[in-house]
Amino acid sequence: MGRVIPLEDVRETSQRLQPLLDLVAEDMEAINRIILDKAVSDVEMIPELAHHLIDSGGKRLRPMLALASAKLCGYTGNGHIRTASAVEFMHTATLLHDDVVDESATRRGRKTARMIWGNQASVLVGDFLLGQAFKMFVDVGSLPVLRIMSNAAATIAEGEVMQLAAAKNTSTTEDDYLTIINSKTAALFTAAAESGAALAHRPNEEQSALRSYGKNLGLAFQLVDDALDYAGDSTRLGKSVGDDFREGKITLPVILSFRRGSSDERQFWNRTIAEGDIAEGDLEHAITLMRRHKAIEATFERARSYGAIARDALAIFPQSREKDALEQVIEFCIGRSH
Amino acid sequence: MGRVIPLEDVRETSQRLQPLLDLVAEDMEAINRIILDKAVSDVEMIPELAHHLIDSGGKRLRPMLALASAKLCGYTGNGHIRTASAVEFMHTATLLHDDVVDESATRRGRKTARMIWGNQASVLVGDFLLGQAFKMFVDVGSLPVLRIMSNAAATIAEGEVMQLAAAKNTSTTEDDYLTIINSKTAALFTAAAESGAALAHRPNEEQSALRSYGKNLGLAFQLVDDALDYAGDSTRLGKSVGDDFREGKITLPVILSFRRGSSDERQFWNRTIAEGDIAEGDLEHAITLMRRHKAIEATFERARSYGAIARDALAIFPQSREKDALEQVIEFCIGRSH
Repeated sequence: MGRVIPLEDVRETSQRLQPLLDLVAEDMEAINRIILDKAVSDVEMIPELAHHLIDSGGKRLRPMLALASAKLCGYTGNGHIRTASAVEFMHTATLLHDDVVDESATRRGRKTARMIWGNQASVLVGDFLLGQAFKMFVDVGSLPVLRIMSNAAATIAEGEVMQLAAAKNTSTTEDDYLTIINSKTAALFTAAAESGAALAHRPNEEQSALRSYGKNLGLAFQLVDDALDYAGDSTRLGKSVGDDFREGKITLPVILSFRRGSSDERQFWNRTIAEGDIAEGDLEHAITLMRRHKAIEATFERARSYGAIARDALAIFPQSREKDALEQVIEFCIGRSH
Repeated sequence: MGRVIPLEDVRETSQRLQPLLDLVAEDMEAINRIILDKAVSDVEMIPELAHHLIDSGGKRLRPMLALASAKLCGYTGNGHIRTASAVEFMHTATLLHDDVVDESATRRGRKTARMIWGNQASVLVGDFLLGQAFKMFVDVGSLPVLRIMSNAAATIAEGEVMQLAAAKNTSTTEDDYLTIINSKTAALFTAAAESGAALAHRPNEEQSALRSYGKNLGLAFQLVDDALDYAGDSTRLGKSVGDDFREGKITLPVILSFRRGSSDERQFWNRTIAEGDIAEGDLEHAITLMRRHKAIEATFERARSYGAIARDALAIFPQSREKDALEQVIEFCIGRSH
């Protein structure tokens, strides 16, 4: 478990993120201070557990999108800092609840909070962080941003319930799967990307463009994530290959392999994914089947086409440092497939 | 399990709630429609699970407080309807997560949602309802109300974490306990009571008064609730006597009995509450010890004194039908002790 990616690949992947990192470096320092500050509570368990996730080396892609979007839209206030911090809190809250629901033991190569502090604390600290996120959005004082974020919160939860209902169900279609990842993952990318235009009171055209960019980037991101879970010799930091398989998660590589496979192969998927009866060598066999049917390749291909939509969505903005950074983020997300 | 209260007592208790029920009857119909409407989702499990709780015969005390507060403050808009509906959603979300954290099997005499749909769905549908609640607060469009409610959301979660940290710990003091119930229960009563003044843009003096009323009413409510869990032949609808004992919950009757007891008695509390080693007859013995030390009586007495503070908090308002209804709610909450 836990395959660490070679250093050169880390560098190559990071380079595509560099323009965004440079663009928001100063703001991200402020955000890191706010995040530390808002995870404080007299109740000891709260900062302990929150920091476990906050310090776990996530890329902070979502808050960076919120910042870059505000800059692209020429926003001159400072509400984007709190907005972006709160977006990261929403994301952290989601991760805490996700790990409880998925009964995950590890995340980014480390024990999940639920393995250390238990499911109960993970549920409650997730609730606390979501409450803190909304307090921060209220501090920003923008009703349009609050509308975007409360919509996202409900949509994400809806997507998680859908995913739970589809769990272990091999008859899930690609469309069902897209609906799920559109809600559970793309919704927060969408909200983050849209928030800058809302803060800057930009015309609806620009807000829709950023909404479309965020949504398609989020879809591409999740598709690549799901492909990498099976991409055997993956260039992936932290996450172990085969986690989704062991949890019986229905992701696109499984859906495509199931549909493209023989009836014997479908029996294999039903035994492993649906019934959870997994023996030594099953993961390797699953990956062999996926390669046979080019299911991982097709998943990356789908990601690239959503990436193209995201890029076109930005076309209405004139070229700028900010636009370039946002375009390169698409390459970063897709680039993880090489 | 599940002791049903005699009909005459139901009537007597309800009578104290009647002025409030009459005051808000029309609005409550609108609220019931909104609640049904907002629990809708294409994801089948969401309305199913949400309705299980929504239709379970709760008193809807918190939304009624929000409505009465708006009326007391002469609010003439219609934002109080959505505010009150969202308050009930927040409460429902909390109950769903509570039952997961407490591993409760029954609530108000019925199976909990987690026993039917599982812990995972309960966590996620709770998140969905909280998201819907914030969407409704955004629809109301009042930043002061949003501030009150996001504060409450974070505080409630903080209180639940505190309660979890204090679980099974017999050295919890009465002060610790008060801090916990102030956060986990009184915070939403406070927010509901305060919301009307915020909507009606009333001066700070009135908003503080309603805040104090809500807080102390909430404390009294929770104290009585905790006492009734041990009040053997209680006049209590739905909740089974001894639930808290079986779950090892540290409530005031236990805290007082532990502190007032002999060292043998403390051993009993440590074995049962702290270690969870509960045998036939232990609940009866616990109640005997509580009676010996007048712990239940003292808990009711504390509730009455918070009730008195709540009543005095309202004193700055001239007598009115609304004020009378809010005063009688105090009697209703305390009255559950007879």
